[in-house]
Amino acid sequence: MTSATQEPEMTLPTETSATPAPTGNLEITVSRAELLRELTAAQSVVERKTTIPILSNFLFEATQGAGGDRLTITATDLDQSLRTSCAAKVKKAGACTIPARKLYDYIKLLPEGEISIKLMDNHWVQIRAGRSNTKMVGMARANFPQVPEFPTSGAVKISVPSLKNMVSKTIFAISNEESRYTLNGALLVLKAESMAMVATDGHRLAHIEKLGETLEGVSGEKKTLIPRKALSELSSLLGATEAETLEFGDDEQTLFFRVGGRVLTSRKLTGQFPNYEAVLPRDNNKFVIVRCEDLMGSIQRVAQFADERSGAIKIRLEQNELKLSSSSTDAGESEDTIETPYNYDPLVVGFNSQYLIDFLKAIGNTGEVRLEFKDAQSAGQMRPEDANEDVKYRYILMPMRI
Amino acid sequence: MTSATQEPEMTLPTETSATPAPTGNLEITVSRAELLRELTAAQSVVERKTTIPILSNFLFEATQGAGGDRLTITATDLDQSLRTSCAAKVKKAGACTIPARKLYDYIKLLPEGEISIKLMDNHWVQIRAGRSNTKMVGMARANFPQVPEFPTSGAVKISVPSLKNMVSKTIFAISNEESRYTLNGALLVLKAESMAMVATDGHRLAHIEKLGETLEGVSGEKKTLIPRKALSELSSLLGATEAETLEFGDDEQTLFFRVGGRVLTSRKLTGQFPNYEAVLPRDNNKFVIVRCEDLMGSIQRVAQFADERSGAIKIRLEQNELKLSSSSTDAGESEDTIETPYNYDPLVVGFNSQYLIDFLKAIGNTGEVRLEFKDAQSAGQMRPEDANEDVKYRYILMPMRI
Repeated sequence: MTSATQEPEMTLPTETSATPAPTGNLEITVSRAELLRELTAAQSVVERKTTIPILSNFLFEATQGAGGDRLTITATDLDQSLRTSCAAKVKKAGACTIPARKLYDYIKLLPEGEISIKLMDNHWVQIRAGRSNTKMVGMARANFPQVPEFPTSGAVKISVPSLKNMVSKTIFAISNEESRYTLNGALLVLKAESMAMVATDGHRLAHIEKLGETLEGVSGEKKTLIPRKALSELSSLLGATEAETLEFGDDEQTLFFRVGGRVLTSRKLTGQFPNYEAVLPRDNNKFVIVRCEDLMGSIQRVAQFADERSGAIKIRLEQNELKLSSSSTDAGESEDTIETPYNYDPLVVGFNSQYLIDFLKAIGNTGEVRLEFKDAQSAGQMRPEDANEDVKYRYILMPMRI
Repeated sequence: MTSATQEPEMTLPTETSATPAPTGNLEITVSRAELLRELTAAQSVVERKTTIPILSNFLFEATQGAGGDRLTITATDLDQSLRTSCAAKVKKAGACTIPARKLYDYIKLLPEGEISIKLMDNHWVQIRAGRSNTKMVGMARANFPQVPEFPTSGAVKISVPSLKNMVSKTIFAISNEESRYTLNGALLVLKAESMAMVATDGHRLAHIEKLGETLEGVSGEKKTLIPRKALSELSSLLGATEAETLEFGDDEQTLFFRVGGRVLTSRKLTGQFPNYEAVLPRDNNKFVIVRCEDLMGSIQRVAQFADERSGAIKIRLEQNELKLSSSSTDAGESEDTIETPYNYDPLVVGFNSQYLIDFLKAIGNTGEVRLEFKDAQSAGQMRPEDANEDVKYRYILMPMRI
């Protein structure tokens, strides 16, 4: 995320507001398996190289309640936060912060069993398990930034498998150029009976639409730009859950995703996502269908001899033949031929080989793919050639001059 | 290898001498599986970042003979060379050079089947397979350096499994400091009925001796210093062969290892290996025996809180107890206890945790290990606690002040 999108108001409030947070001398026992599972979920949000020391720490909060004793773990890098919890025996309710990476590595190295965690003087935290006894240097709980609270109304329920699929089919097309910050995320489009996701870096665009989804509470069109880093966290969250649905909410500054007891928040990206519908090709009526595996093999071979900077390879369509070729002054030249029905006018068009490979990987490099063209100056389109009527997936690539 | 050990005489002879090498327009067909197997063996010798372009190339030599047509592949970085071969249909005997990395990557990407290779004009090499057709930019065969020839006499036959074991038990203790170039290798000691290998970096020393080996042609003691890089290549060679024995020879400048039709050469290291026998402890009579897995777990946990630069942890032996501990100002402190019989005087001694871990890894982190000490100022010794009478393996570590 670029500094241009960071607004100052979210930085370091030291007071808790909505939930009265515990502040006593935390003392708990927790199962190593459960703790490790939650730390694994939370640790990816922690910045490796942060200049703000408290952000390398987890916030641990232990509470006793009617629903049972719980340990809540929070991680944040100020742009994102993740809050998760597990059952624990809470001797003393309280809170502390612990260096995230060190704790995660240490807990991974402990054998299965019960772990005792106790806040000591000077923010030191004692961790005992079996015949292991460790004291880690924590920081004051009061320094840990306030994390946004899930909004009390307006959340939308979304199918976990559908969202997971949409993220994996678009995330790779998000721009890596930090300066183009409205392209540093994917656009989620929710309607009453469908949802869609689209991502582009200006050279290629991935668009997926899922029909037949009933989204309660959505009227008209709700468009949300989700930053790449949040999508990547979301993808891990969705991969680790057995829940069928996710709750998605937002307020003025923040996006919220709640799934299986975990809440991921992400600061919103500002700015307007481009009008992608204008670039979707309408008359790409020359097409060819090939097996993904064949195409992948040919592209990978030919790409070895593409210009290293551009990665450009040439696609040549002739009577029942798809030819891929490349040449570079350093390495040599390469050509691969795939036999496949083709009866339109011959066509020669150049593409970035990596962009072609990205799409084939996204559809799992199985089955068949349809390549649709207009001419050498127009965008090409790729689609999986399968029978799923409810999912419309398309990938648009700008041509390269070669 | 340091420049101090590079002697000028081996650099770039352009004439072949011992074997009359083919020079015609090579044209062959070879099975992809066989070619890939040999390229895999040879490619690790090729320097990734060389300033001498020809050294990024393989030398291909195709010969027709009574023993059948063969393709011989050679790679060298001037310090080492590897020469291997496979069966091929040779239409025209000849030689060419081909960029090693590009070729290896390309052949990996080709499907199983026959591959045709043909030398064209200007040192270009055509590679055809199925519907793939590639031309690679090679270099003149005459530029490829001469590779030393296996000596005609004096080679010693060595057991492959025994040598493999000795290399894996010592290679990790070789010094990484290029300036200590007599420690940049392991010493192989051959006797008529035993062999040994020893490596040290000045802080720890690994020594393994294998008794009951009959080494024909060895009288007295033959000591050879083998550079680390050669040991690492040798280790791959030994791992990839089904041969039972290896032939080891040397001349004034070069070491030779022939196994399963492949020949590895390595420039000799100059200088004298230190008198390691003087540092082998003789009266380390306080000892303790622990399960490797337990010790490994404890060391790894405690090492998380060791001083990052030194990695030092403390071993404390008390009545039936082995305690490991560490502390660092940044991270905190940690202690692990292992119950085990111990009835000598209490002892506290510090060691580099990584050095301890290296040894436990070398013995596969299974079974038991014996730790032998004299006092806090003397070297400690580790040995696997197993019943193999023929293999004597010991590891000596200098203590650290903590």
